[in-house]
Formats: sequence, C-alpha cells, structure tokens
Amino acid sequence: MLEQLRAIVGDKGLITDPGEMEPWLTDWRQRRRGQALCVVSPATTAEVSAVVALCAAEGQPVFPVGGNTGLCFGAVPESDRPGKIGVVLSLRRLNRIRALDQATGIATVDAGVVLGDLHEAAVRAGRQFPLHLGSEGSAQIGGLISTNAGGTGVVRYGPMRDLVAGLEIVLADGRVLTDLAGLRKDNTGYMLRHLFIGAEGTLGIITGAALRLHPQTPNTAHAWVSVADPAAAVSLLTALQGRAGSYIQAFELVSASQFELVRRHEERVRIPFAEIPAWSLLIELGSEDATTALNAILEEVLGAALESGGIIDAIVATSEQQAADFWHVRHSVSEANKKEGIGIVHDVAVRTSDAAAFIAAADKVAAERFPQAVTQVVCHLGDGNVHYILMFQREFWNSLEDEDAFVLEVERAIHDAAAVFEGTFSAEHGVGRKLTEELERLADPLRYELMGRVKALFDPQNLMNPGVLLTAKPM
Amino acid sequence: MLEQLRAIVGDKGLITDPGEMEPWLTDWRQRRRGQALCVVSPATTAEVSAVVALCAAEGQPVFPVGGNTGLCFGAVPESDRPGKIGVVLSLRRLNRIRALDQATGIATVDAGVVLGDLHEAAVRAGRQFPLHLGSEGSAQIGGLISTNAGGTGVVRYGPMRDLVAGLEIVLADGRVLTDLAGLRKDNTGYMLRHLFIGAEGTLGIITGAALRLHPQTPNTAHAWVSVADPAAAVSLLTALQGRAGSYIQAFELVSASQFELVRRHEERVRIPFAEIPAWSLLIELGSEDATTALNAILEEVLGAALESGGIIDAIVATSEQQAADFWHVRHSVSEANKKEGIGIVHDVAVRTSDAAAFIAAADKVAAERFPQAVTQVVCHLGDGNVHYILMFQREFWNSLEDEDAFVLEVERAIHDAAAVFEGTFSAEHGVGRKLTEELERLADPLRYELMGRVKALFDPQNLMNPGVLLTAKPM
Repeated sequence: MLEQLRAIVGDKGLITDPGEMEPWLTDWRQRRRGQALCVVSPATTAEVSAVVALCAAEGQPVFPVGGNTGLCFGAVPESDRPGKIGVVLSLRRLNRIRALDQATGIATVDAGVVLGDLHEAAVRAGRQFPLHLGSEGSAQIGGLISTNAGGTGVVRYGPMRDLVAGLEIVLADGRVLTDLAGLRKDNTGYMLRHLFIGAEGTLGIITGAALRLHPQTPNTAHAWVSVADPAAAVSLLTALQGRAGSYIQAFELVSASQFELVRRHEERVRIPFAEIPAWSLLIELGSEDATTALNAILEEVLGAALESGGIIDAIVATSEQQAADFWHVRHSVSEANKKEGIGIVHDVAVRTSDAAAFIAAADKVAAERFPQAVTQVVCHLGDGNVHYILMFQREFWNSLEDEDAFVLEVERAIHDAAAVFEGTFSAEHGVGRKLTEELERLADPLRYELMGRVKALFDPQNLMNPGVLLTAKPM
Repeated sequence: MLEQLRAIVGDKGLITDPGEMEPWLTDWRQRRRGQALCVVSPATTAEVSAVVALCAAEGQPVFPVGGNTGLCFGAVPESDRPGKIGVVLSLRRLNRIRALDQATGIATVDAGVVLGDLHEAAVRAGRQFPLHLGSEGSAQIGGLISTNAGGTGVVRYGPMRDLVAGLEIVLADGRVLTDLAGLRKDNTGYMLRHLFIGAEGTLGIITGAALRLHPQTPNTAHAWVSVADPAAAVSLLTALQGRAGSYIQAFELVSASQFELVRRHEERVRIPFAEIPAWSLLIELGSEDATTALNAILEEVLGAALESGGIIDAIVATSEQQAADFWHVRHSVSEANKKEGIGIVHDVAVRTSDAAAFIAAADKVAAERFPQAVTQVVCHLGDGNVHYILMFQREFWNSLEDEDAFVLEVERAIHDAAAVFEGTFSAEHGVGRKLTEELERLADPLRYELMGRVKALFDPQNLMNPGVLLTAKPM
C-alpha cells in the first residue's frame, strides 16, 4: 500500500515517519489523537483521484485534512475498521489560485489554498472574498467548504455555502465530479454541490472550488450601543434592517459579564463607557460607495431609538482608531476567557426573533443547574448565532470527578434549551467527531435516516472520513 | 382509488369531470396535453401526505402543479406506466401565509401561495420579497421553488434557491420532512433542502417554505446606455461592480435588432435615442437609504466611461416617469416578438466574462446555418443569462416540412455554442419534459448518473412527476 501510494504522489507527497506524522494525528488543541498508516499529500486532482481509488480498492479509510483548524475533531484520523487504520489525506500541496475572473466575480482555486492567500488574490482582482475568521492564516478552502465555515461576515454575505459557485470533487470511488463552470443561473437538475458543502469530508474529497468575490467596502461606520436587554437589541436591529439592512456588516451582542472579563485580563483595551453596559451592541455598516453617509444613517437610527427609550446610550466612532478600538475589545474575548477559567462555549443558533427568549431560557437553566458558573453571551445577533458561555473557576473545575461527563451535561442542557426554539446545537462549528451523538439525539429522525441513506449512496464502503457526522454505519 | 382520495380531501378537493379537468391536463400555452385519473387538491400538508402515501401504495404517478405557468411542460401529466395514468396534485388550496417574522426577515408560507400575494405580505412586514417575473400574478411558491425561478432580481438577490431558508416536503412514501426552522446558520450535516429546490417535483412535493425577506429599496436610479458591442457592456459592468456592485438591481443588454421590433410593433414606447443604439444597456441601482446619491454614482461611472471611449452615449433618468418609460420598452419585448413572427428563444447562461464571446459564436452559427433568421439578444448580463433569439418570418416558417425537427436543430446548435463556454442550455426555465433529451445529451455523464441515483434513492418507484428531468428510469 505505501509503495503504491509513493508511486502516485512521489517521496515529497508521503510521510510515514511517526515523528513527522504526529501533527497530523491530532487536532490543533491536541485534545484528541488518532493514528494512520501515513500522511499522503497529492499535488494534483489526478493524484487525489488515484489515492482515493487505491484506498477504495484496499478498503482503507481516507481522512481528509485542510489547515487542521477545526474545533470538533473532524480531522482526527480514527478508524473503527479492524486492521485498516487508514490514511490521512492532506490537501496542502493543491495550493494554486487557478484563475481570477473579475467580470464574473469568481476565483477558481485549489482546495489547499489558505484563506488568507485568497483574500490577497481577491484584492489583486479589485474585489474581496468576504469570509473572515480567526484561523484565516492557516485554514484552507477545502476544509472551509467541507465545514461550511461562518465567521463574522455571515450577516451580510452568508456562510461559505453562499460563496461557493462550483466545486471539483473526488468521489469515494476515485471518479472526479467537475462542476466549476461558475454559472449564476443553471436549472438543469439536482444541485448536488450543496450535499458536499458542510459534509465534513464524509461524501467525497473537495479538490477545487469556484468562489464568489464581492465588491470591496472601504466606506464603513461603527457604533457601540448600550441596551437594557437582548430584546432591545433585536428591536434596534429590526429598525436598522429596514433603514439600511444591506449595509450591515456586523451586529454583535455581548453581555456585561463578558466584557468585564476582557477588562480584567486585557490591560490595553479601551472601553468607551465608564461603566460597562448591561448589554453592548457593536455595529458595523459598510459600502463600496464613499459618498454614502453611513455615520449619518447610524446617528439617525440610534437617535430615534434613544428618543423612544429603545436604547440607553450610543457612541458612533469618529475615527478609524476609535473603530479599531471597539473591535479590539470584541476580539479580545477568547484570550480573556482562557485567562479567566474553564469556559464551556456553545455554538447555538436560533432565529433572531427568538434570541432574547433563548438567552433568558439558557440563563434559567444555568442558574438552576449550574450555579457555579458565570454566564457570558457573545452573539452574532444579525444571524441568530449565540455563543452562550458558562465560565467556571479552576478551583471548582478541579473538584470535578469526571470532567467529560460534566461538560456533556452542560452542553446537553443548553442544546435542549435551544431545541425548544427549533434552534441548532451547531451553528458554525460543525459536528465532527465531537457532536455525533448530539446529532443523533437531536436531529429529526427522518432527516437523520435520509442523511444515512445519502452517505450510503455516495460512500457505500463508509471509507470517507468514517466516524465523522454520523455515528451509525450507513445502511 | 377515487373514493379513497375523496375520503382524504373531500368533494371540494377532487375533480373528476373531464371538462373541469381539462385546464390541468395542458400547459398554459396549450402546446402539450396529458391525461390523469383526477385532479386532487389537498387543503393541508397532512392531506398531501395521505394522498401521496395512497398513490405510493397504488403505484399511481403523482403530477404536482402550482400555477401552471412553466415553459417546459413540467406540469403536464404524462404517465408511461401501463394502466396507471396517475393523478394531478394541485397545491392551490394550500394558500396560507403562515407567519411573517420581521426581525429574522422570514415569511413562512404554504406552497400554494401566489407570488403576488407574498409580495403584498412582505410589504405589510415592512420588507420585500425580491423575486419578480412576468407570471407573478399566478405562479405559486411551491412551483417557483421546484423550478428554482429566476427573473429580473437575480443579479442582486440570486435565484429562488438563495431566498429559501427552509422547506416542508412530502416524500414519495408520504412521510413529511419538516425543515422550517429558518436558521441562517446550521452546520449539522447534509443540506438536503437544496436537492428539492429545482428538482421540478421529481423527488417529493414541497408543501411549505420559509423564505427570506429583504429590505425595501425605494431609492433607485436608472440609465440607458449606448455601447458598441457586448464586450464594452462587460467592461462597464466590471467598473460599476467595483464602484457600487451591491446596488445593482438590473443590468440588461439588448441588441438593436430587438428594440427595432419593439418600435415597429408597440406604438406607445418612448426610446430616448433618435437612433436605436447597436447595443443598449438598461441599468438600475437601488438602495434602502434615501440619502445615497445613486444618480451621482451612475453619472460618475458613465462619465468616466464616456471619456475613455468605453461607451458611446448615456442617459440617466431624471424622473420616475422617464425610468418607467425605459423599463416599458424592455418589458414590451415579448409582445413585440409575438407580433413579428416565430421566435425561437434560448435560455442560455455563461459566465459574464464569456457573454460577448458566446454572443459572437452564436451569431456565427446563426449566420451560417440559419440565414433566414434575424437574431436578437436580450441578456441579463449581470448574471450571464442570455436569451438568444432567432426570429423567423411566418412565410418561411410555413414552408417548413417538420417544424419540431427544425426547432430542435436550431436549439441544439445554440446549446452547443454555449457548451463550448461551459454554459448551460437552461439558465432559469428548467428542463421539464421539453429538454430531457438535451439534459441527457449535454450533462456531464457522471453528474447525470448521480442524478439518477439520487432520484432512485428518494423515489424508488419513480412515481414523482415521472418523465420530467430524467428520461431514463432510475437505476
């Protein structure tokens, strides 16, 4: 097997040394570790096809990996097949920007292109690629598509799914499905593409993509708003949607408990209110047109809300520095939380109209069942995504007999609170190996059954990233 | 069977009289006619479920129909199953607007709601539903989703697919897949929804939908531009995309040959140029913000293009009346063509960057093979959709021995010209029963095979709108 793989990808494309393989066997936070025969790194789609066909013939699982920046262990190689530990398939050598089509607004790229490199290429074409997240310096396009990545731009541009205009996929039998025409309109039958977006590598290997570019929006405006509660935030959002909805680039709701931690642990942040608001909203508008008076729009909407008592206070940034200061506070959340203690972060989404009720319900659950926790809310309110956090002090944590069981208990309680509102337990992070049991527990049984059938259709041997997404063997 | 159906839907929901059934057996242009046992019109999702389950048990085909406004015979009931002519399933009695959620920007509706009624409901919620097409007074939501309808708003808002936030579907065995949570972010496995969008009723019956609303854009600006050729139009679009891309609501390219017909047959149109331009561009920008100076943006971009010789002339509308006059000319195209002769209209799409080359290639094919035709171009350039038209005089047409064979010859020639650019032969009209052979001829064989497998997975008896989309029996 190894020699056959070497014949396909060459010495440069094969890692078999245990020490060199080590980083590929764990997630980046090193919480979970698997094993594999080797790490194979094809340099072309044809090589990926040959590798996958060989694995199909040998009955070896294929564990695809991009930048290995996921949070749900979706890239940890764990075979449950006796005697077949499988191969890690890295896309990193497929890293060409194949074409930039400015008139159509499409970049065609290899799956292994790093997101940050695509950002730069888009700017060279006078456009932007509007997917932004913390790991953009190492996350790869194929992984971002396979996990339907979200990030901060979703409120305006949608998740990765909305940015994909075409895919190139190596199917489980090694055949290549090419769908890179990049047409905006094409009504000629079933849109198979969307099955692979968010499939976490369980239906095939994405080797290339046609991605939509958008105009750059150099004109921006920023506000920090103090509101009494999440319901007031939803009302303000509704008003702003009607007045300037398509300009909204961020609408982030953060609880005082969260920003208090930031102030405690991050010395250099500048919070523009003497007292941290009970609930803060950080708002960004953007336009490609320099003459659109975005600050005036914000002042008008915020002024009306102040007058009617809908909001408590608001500050519109008057300089780029002040805007940068606002966002620096927001971006300091993760670091501050790490310094504070043990935070269990949930990735729930509900409808925006249900966000306030969900937060209240989660607060109730937390107060009743986990009184040791301080609760914090970091919410992309514009798209309904609530990162609901229970923060525990290390002292309490160290007293736990079974940490994993406790985490599961907390997670299930919050997921159940979301399910009451038809919310999801995984808005943007995916399922991976971490949440397969939650998926089985919470998914509509009919949908879960159909997912199993689709898996069996595209991957009858269950060799594509087995154990990710679906727990059960396909039917 | 009929009595069982009557027991499910009642007398009001069943038509068996041949005269009353007649309108349901043909397309609205009465070009093709089928037959059916009856027309059944359930009033609830549960009734649809019971009807479909009964048909599954009896082996009777189910032919769903919405407003019956399609152009590809997708709603004509034609069974190829001996002794089982099937039932027409009309969704017209499922016509409730279930809920309007302003904060989330979602309308939840029955499949039988007429598009125009949804437009009005959206306005009541202070928003718009931005899908617009000629048949909006009778086309129904379920049919519009099943055919992934396009129309004039695609350049800004995308086709119907981009406006669907959730579906309720009765599967081929009668079970109901409910996916109406309407979440903007949900990464919990395969996105099955997209299989049913554009499936033309061949995988299941859509009974309800959650649809995205957008802000209204009362501030608009309009221009009529004269350009030398399609390449100049693409250059102007590229410049405007960079300057104000997200404001573009229409970018229509029309040949002089087309507008000359309009002037010949429609007396009341006002064309603002003394001489009709070789190629006309009609441009609309729109914003929800009244203070954004859209006319100034147009004047700036057009002024720069005039100066550099990129365009020949341009008129920015200075009144609502003048803007309405512009669009009246554009909307008179279909009527004028009907009066002129026999037009074979193609629904091709290519990348915007390939539009000029495709039009040149089609012109060459037309001149060489069909010199009797005048060619006309009506192109949604912003989304690459080219309605390429060959217009024949009735005298020539009447001399043809086999009209159908001639139409097929013309269509194949133009579709082949598009295929060179990886273009599609059906951008927005769908496949229906009209283009099944073109789909089989032109689709990537691997994609076609996978479509057959998906069909067999969801509809193993081949009872859901059989004969539409796929010619072959499922595997």
